Amino acid sequence: MTDPLVIFTPSGKRGHFPVGTPVLTAARQLGVDLDSVCGGRGICSKCQVSPSYGEFSKHGVTVQPDALSAWNSVEERYDNIRGLPKGRRLGCQATVQSDIVIDVPAESQVHRQVVRKAASDRVITMDPATKLYYVQVAEPDMHEPTGDFERLGEALTAQWGIGPTTAPLPVMRRLQPALRKGKWAVTVALHKGHRDAQHRVLDIWPGFHEGRIYGLAIDLGSTTIAAHLTDLRNGSVAASAGIMNPQIRFGEDLMSRVSYAMMNPGGDVEMTDAVRTAIDTLTVDLAGQAGIEPDQIVEAVFVCNPVMHHLLLGIDPVELGQAPFALATSNSISLDATELNLSGMNSAARVFILPCIAGHVGADAAAVALSEEPDKSDDLVLIVDVGTNAEILLGDRSRVLACSSPTGPAFEGAQISSGQRAAPGAIERVEINPDTKEPRFRVIGSEVWSDEPGFDEAIATTGVTGICGSGIIEAVAELRMAGLLDSKGLMGSAEQTGTERMLPEGRTHSYLLYDGTAENGPKVTVTQGDIRAIQLAKSALYAGARLLMDEMGVDTVDRVVLAGAFGAHISPKHAMVLGMIPDADLDKVTSAGNAAGTGARIALCSVAARDRIETLVRNITKVETAIEPKFQEHFVNANAVPHATDPFPKLRAIAPLPDLNFNTQGDGADGGRRRRRPR
Amino acid sequence: MTDPLVIFTPSGKRGHFPVGTPVLTAARQLGVDLDSVCGGRGICSKCQVSPSYGEFSKHGVTVQPDALSAWNSVEERYDNIRGLPKGRRLGCQATVQSDIVIDVPAESQVHRQVVRKAASDRVITMDPATKLYYVQVAEPDMHEPTGDFERLGEALTAQWGIGPTTAPLPVMRRLQPALRKGKWAVTVALHKGHRDAQHRVLDIWPGFHEGRIYGLAIDLGSTTIAAHLTDLRNGSVAASAGIMNPQIRFGEDLMSRVSYAMMNPGGDVEMTDAVRTAIDTLTVDLAGQAGIEPDQIVEAVFVCNPVMHHLLLGIDPVELGQAPFALATSNSISLDATELNLSGMNSAARVFILPCIAGHVGADAAAVALSEEPDKSDDLVLIVDVGTNAEILLGDRSRVLACSSPTGPAFEGAQISSGQRAAPGAIERVEINPDTKEPRFRVIGSEVWSDEPGFDEAIATTGVTGICGSGIIEAVAELRMAGLLDSKGLMGSAEQTGTERMLPEGRTHSYLLYDGTAENGPKVTVTQGDIRAIQLAKSALYAGARLLMDEMGVDTVDRVVLAGAFGAHISPKHAMVLGMIPDADLDKVTSAGNAAGTGARIALCSVAARDRIETLVRNITKVETAIEPKFQEHFVNANAVPHATDPFPKLRAIAPLPDLNFNTQGDGADGGRRRRRPR
Repeated sequence: MTDPLVIFTPSGKRGHFPVGTPVLTAARQLGVDLDSVCGGRGICSKCQVSPSYGEFSKHGVTVQPDALSAWNSVEERYDNIRGLPKGRRLGCQATVQSDIVIDVPAESQVHRQVVRKAASDRVITMDPATKLYYVQVAEPDMHEPTGDFERLGEALTAQWGIGPTTAPLPVMRRLQPALRKGKWAVTVALHKGHRDAQHRVLDIWPGFHEGRIYGLAIDLGSTTIAAHLTDLRNGSVAASAGIMNPQIRFGEDLMSRVSYAMMNPGGDVEMTDAVRTAIDTLTVDLAGQAGIEPDQIVEAVFVCNPVMHHLLLGIDPVELGQAPFALATSNSISLDATELNLSGMNSAARVFILPCIAGHVGADAAAVALSEEPDKSDDLVLIVDVGTNAEILLGDRSRVLACSSPTGPAFEGAQISSGQRAAPGAIERVEINPDTKEPRFRVIGSEVWSDEPGFDEAIATTGVTGICGSGIIEAVAELRMAGLLDSKGLMGSAEQTGTERMLPEGRTHSYLLYDGTAENGPKVTVTQGDIRAIQLAKSALYAGARLLMDEMGVDTVDRVVLAGAFGAHISPKHAMVLGMIPDADLDKVTSAGNAAGTGARIALCSVAARDRIETLVRNITKVETAIEPKFQEHFVNANAVPHATDPFPKLRAIAPLPDLNFNTQGDGADGGRRRRRPR
Repeated sequence: MTDPLVIFTPSGKRGHFPVGTPVLTAARQLGVDLDSVCGGRGICSKCQVSPSYGEFSKHGVTVQPDALSAWNSVEERYDNIRGLPKGRRLGCQATVQSDIVIDVPAESQVHRQVVRKAASDRVITMDPATKLYYVQVAEPDMHEPTGDFERLGEALTAQWGIGPTTAPLPVMRRLQPALRKGKWAVTVALHKGHRDAQHRVLDIWPGFHEGRIYGLAIDLGSTTIAAHLTDLRNGSVAASAGIMNPQIRFGEDLMSRVSYAMMNPGGDVEMTDAVRTAIDTLTVDLAGQAGIEPDQIVEAVFVCNPVMHHLLLGIDPVELGQAPFALATSNSISLDATELNLSGMNSAARVFILPCIAGHVGADAAAVALSEEPDKSDDLVLIVDVGTNAEILLGDRSRVLACSSPTGPAFEGAQISSGQRAAPGAIERVEINPDTKEPRFRVIGSEVWSDEPGFDEAIATTGVTGICGSGIIEAVAELRMAGLLDSKGLMGSAEQTGTERMLPEGRTHSYLLYDGTAENGPKVTVTQGDIRAIQLAKSALYAGARLLMDEMGVDTVDRVVLAGAFGAHISPKHAMVLGMIPDADLDKVTSAGNAAGTGARIALCSVAARDRIETLVRNITKVETAIEPKFQEHFVNANAVPHATDPFPKLRAIAPLPDLNFNTQGDGADGGRRRRRPR
């Protein structure tokens, strides 16, 4: 008689096993993904399975009611103490008696798949660098004197197949008491980074430890530091928070921070201290939100641009401020949190920082690549991460290119006359009626358009305070579509355009978007200077994308992904009207949200992903915009609003129009001024 | 025509090389040990060679005067600036023109052999974990953006064949300025421990760095901390110093320190802080003595007993105070000096701590094994490291055994009525005339015996202050040989012995060794209690050795090595008279000096030795005296002075004597007192 057949679902893996084989053993031998922290001792209950009984014609087996061994005292005890869901058995206790079909529920799978984003069904496999293991350690024997730690290492090898293990001194100090308190059983948090030769004990608890361990995925931006506190068992986000980067007081943008470091001896140290303190604050905040102890945070993954990267590490960023923009180090970095003086987490916590692609294309861009996977794309994808600098990736399975383009902060609402950061009260959406030339808008914090009933109530607490990046982009595009702006980027006068909203401003004109002066509020206008700032920014962005397309030898891309918190708020239509991005079908322009942050989470949840991004970054072709003559050419050519090949029906109605050509009395742009100044 | 023949001496390696091959290149291709720090750029001058001209019938060649290329401008410049010894050429500059014989002087050999001790011609090969490398790094290229550190790594691989390299953050911070100041050439101190997968940059200097790097070999004893500051290039000792272990204030011996830790919460931390501060003090002292900067000290190697080992690491030693004497960790340990809060050396300095053999047999015993190499001995060697605990090794090529024996501190002069540590003024050598029963002695700090002219002048500054360990051992042995002490260890009265030097002391007698009371000095006597203390200590030592001999299945050993600073001062003859050690031919009893300290130096100078001692320690058979019933038996049997099988002619003259049997009126020993106390 052959041994009983054991079939696992959903994997479908099957095999014959002798009567009496524990289900967990069978699963392991077949490579079925069945969790266990205690190694089959009936302690952790992670190996819960659901046996199925009856006829399974699909599998060709009939499962008898006694196909598994009877409910035993370990299961009884566990059920009494914690409760075992109906129909569940412990895989380490139930043994095979005859043919059986066993389902492994999702929560019993180690390599649980975590939905990465709501908008996508892409998943990542949990494979974190730090995991918990329960282990029983041999007691010391005077005849075979070895250290307690060496016996722990032997036990980890024997019980979990884990290779050489090391421990930092503070953990080593707690080993002997933990072993004795746990009666020679302990739970350890073991860490092994992708380049580590040894496992490292980050924490230790007597006996079986019920607690969870967490990691931080930190997107360290020039303006904002955002972090997700992530459960390292299942990848779920326990808490999220963001704070302003306190370095802003040393300089709004990156180059002014580099200047600060150059001009002020010790300035880099000041900025390093500031950002590390902010990370500590954020960490404590997140732990509080999630109701966990700082010690439970055993890892942090950072993504950031090169200047933030250096300032986090305490490296003077001065070389990044001048050609050839040499990074001190570009590879990924693994170190102790204490080396960064981070104090809000476990004192043995490890830090992983993604690799930088180039002096202007940082670990944040690498994280976007990890998240958006251009290297796995069948069609040619352009990925644009819009911020103070735009990081641009272009590629498909065959090749990936990257560059950074100096868009400046206009897209973030800076250098705009009524501009502000994206915050409640900021105008974020704009429409202008092509017939009446009248605007309507929405502000952050309200779902109601300004021409809809209830708008005043909806904005009662915030008011209208200014216009943010996405708002100014829409405004400029709408001005163009409404015929108030010509293709060169000049606005007409009230007479030329037939609307009193065009206000004279020196030799140029502004468009009045909102006048709150009656209620002591601001007057929000779009000035000719604003148009110019947006033109410069979008030209830089477009030129960077074009440069990569030249390098790739293409004139079009198959799809466009807008990344970054800001990218999530840009209207693809308006972006294309403006000429921010190359033409693509509108339904092929998507937002990836905070892709850099997602990349950080992926690297936190998967050691394999750390390897993957290192390899990918090595293989990316880097294009340096600062030294490419064609960049300047593309930049100049991209100045028009919109460019000629615009494919949209609505735009076609405008584009073929004879140019409005408002430039009859000077436009305030440099060219115009220069012409007249000698007068 | 065949290529010219190049013959290197002293190695004898030879090969044919094309005309124009640099001597350094030829040496490398033949595997000839020719040093170079700058990689053949004519900067470091480490590759100096001495070409020989004329006929060499032994080698079958005639060397023409123009066998090497002419003296060139690089050599000229070097000679002008620093001077090149007559007849020397730079191996990287001189090229082969015709058959040539080239001598590599000792100082140009990397694997220079360092005489380990004056008394021995055994040598160690320099193979330190940290070495200096001069390297030229590619400048950053915007088209191929990589980090400066990654390019340094590539250069090390290309120019020195060095694998992956990492750097701690403080060094990483100094990389970019160093590269630019050195015009893209730097010298790095690279460290690779025996278990490290990567090299680690411990320090970096712009351009070619002339300075030297040093390591500390530290013998961390319960009583004394001794350290040698060692040049990592050639193994020479630049300075040596020792200080008292400040932990003495917490307990004279190890067990009282363990008790202190048990009785006082935080007591272990106090002791850890104390010893680390002392090491800092010692380090600063040594750097000052040698006239070097603390930054030049890039490594430290520690040897110590298990309790000191744990206290150094900050691990509570409480488990070492009770069976089963479990070590927290027994393997060798590599860590950053900063992890031990050591601040007197380079902030990136690395620490290596030798493995412990067992809970009572520490890294100091491992160091003795590394130094004395019982595992390479053809004959059976007994190695005794005498201190508060005696560590005993017994073995040969086939097998090595180890144990520790609780001798107590009597051998160090403690628990002796007139005892003191070995310091100027202490009686260290004693002779007693068997006829007159009169003593003569020598004190530390003087070469003059007490019965010789000039003694009073020689000791004018120190006086006679007491008796140290070696002195008391000689005194007891001499008392026995002079017939003043019977084989049970009892001293006779003045009448019994016929000398007024026997002073009554209660029911027992003391021997008056020195009476300085006339000059307000001390009276130095050997009391019956002193005899008992020495008897206990020597019995413990002997019993430990016997236990290993039992385990090995032998009754005799071929040779005995006395290790330890104290071992260096013990007279082998007296040790054997006392019965401290098993019988052996007197010329087979040698002193190894501070073998533990030598072992530390070996591990400092050789990475291979670190591997070797780890393997050896794993293979040593550990014998735990505390649980061996035979230990007690041997201990009791070893009480006599001397034991029966003493082979020495001089002793034979005494041993067969009928026992003097002084025990007529009680002896003050426990047995005697116990018998009488009920009275």
